[in-house]
Amino acid sequence: MNYPNGKKRAAYQSKQTRSLQPEFSNRGMSLEEDINQTNEAYLAAGKAVIHKKPTPVQIVKVDYPKRSAAVIKEAYFRQASTTDYNGVYKGTYVDFEAKETKNKTSFPLSNIHEHQIEHMKQVMQQNGLCFMIVRFSTLGETFFLHAEKLFSIWDRQTKGGRKSIPYEVFKEEGILIPFRYHARVDYLSVLDDYHL
Amino acid sequence: MNYPNGKKRAAYQSKQTRSLQPEFSNRGMSLEEDINQTNEAYLAAGKAVIHKKPTPVQIVKVDYPKRSAAVIKEAYFRQASTTDYNGVYKGTYVDFEAKETKNKTSFPLSNIHEHQIEHMKQVMQQNGLCFMIVRFSTLGETFFLHAEKLFSIWDRQTKGGRKSIPYEVFKEEGILIPFRYHARVDYLSVLDDYHL
Repeated sequence: MNYPNGKKRAAYQSKQTRSLQPEFSNRGMSLEEDINQTNEAYLAAGKAVIHKKPTPVQIVKVDYPKRSAAVIKEAYFRQASTTDYNGVYKGTYVDFEAKETKNKTSFPLSNIHEHQIEHMKQVMQQNGLCFMIVRFSTLGETFFLHAEKLFSIWDRQTKGGRKSIPYEVFKEEGILIPFRYHARVDYLSVLDDYHL
Repeated sequence: MNYPNGKKRAAYQSKQTRSLQPEFSNRGMSLEEDINQTNEAYLAAGKAVIHKKPTPVQIVKVDYPKRSAAVIKEAYFRQASTTDYNGVYKGTYVDFEAKETKNKTSFPLSNIHEHQIEHMKQVMQQNGLCFMIVRFSTLGETFFLHAEKLFSIWDRQTKGGRKSIPYEVFKEEGILIPFRYHARVDYLSVLDDYHL
């Protein structure tokens, strides 16, 4: 299944341009870069094994040039059916989605897809630990929001509620994730206080 | 990082041709197809949430035609740094690699990469549940082999031991995974007896 063009282009660019040219986010690094660095640090320290899933791609045409690597000549972006990150921490399955917004006052729910919420609910039913990491880039603040809170907001929205999560909700119901040099989005420290 | 050409071509084809034209494997379906069907059945039954990770691809060039989907025009296969499948079952992190061989007498270790073993060891250290599913297609038998057993064999190999796992080892130290219509590779039933 493909995104509508505009959406896909946006989705792709937001991912790519970030990893190429840092945005005006916390410490000038993108959330994805910060989380990847953090996960590498966790892995190196034997703290957790958490990886970002590859971008799902529908491969249509592949060339096999002689004496060189196979080249994918035609492929399309597929919409992710799950979240971006998962792994294991102290035996517990950890699963989360990470998003950043330049918006200063709220996080638009258009950043999340119905099937991702569906996946998160399935994970919670299996007693996995599921949450979102949301960065307000312009404010330089990164929040942990437990999936249960996300669900209640999401369900209200589907019943005609507002289409975004106000910054205040993150302040009050989320947890500010500390920045640390060795783990720039130290979300496990939050899980420790919060959960495990 | 790319595979050497031959290897990558092989890796890619083995994956692709399987999903297109079933092999002479158990019930004429490929192991990957059977596991995907099984995971869908587990998901539908609320038994577990386990997905196959997308094939890792290095995207180099993307076109954005007007009024149609973005097209990836140049990309390369990257070697998977982890295993193919992971997810959650009863709160426990489950992680495994699945391979099939036409070989009747042994499973060649060349099917597994050093960094996959490395990943499996990291997962075990986090108390995740890690194993391999190996199908002898020609015999129509699919085995569960716990990661610990794989490690000991792998480590012997690196010390000059044999470069394959004899069929007898699967018979004696592995567990035959039952075929069920609703779950063609019912590996959770094995975990239940074995572990959880």
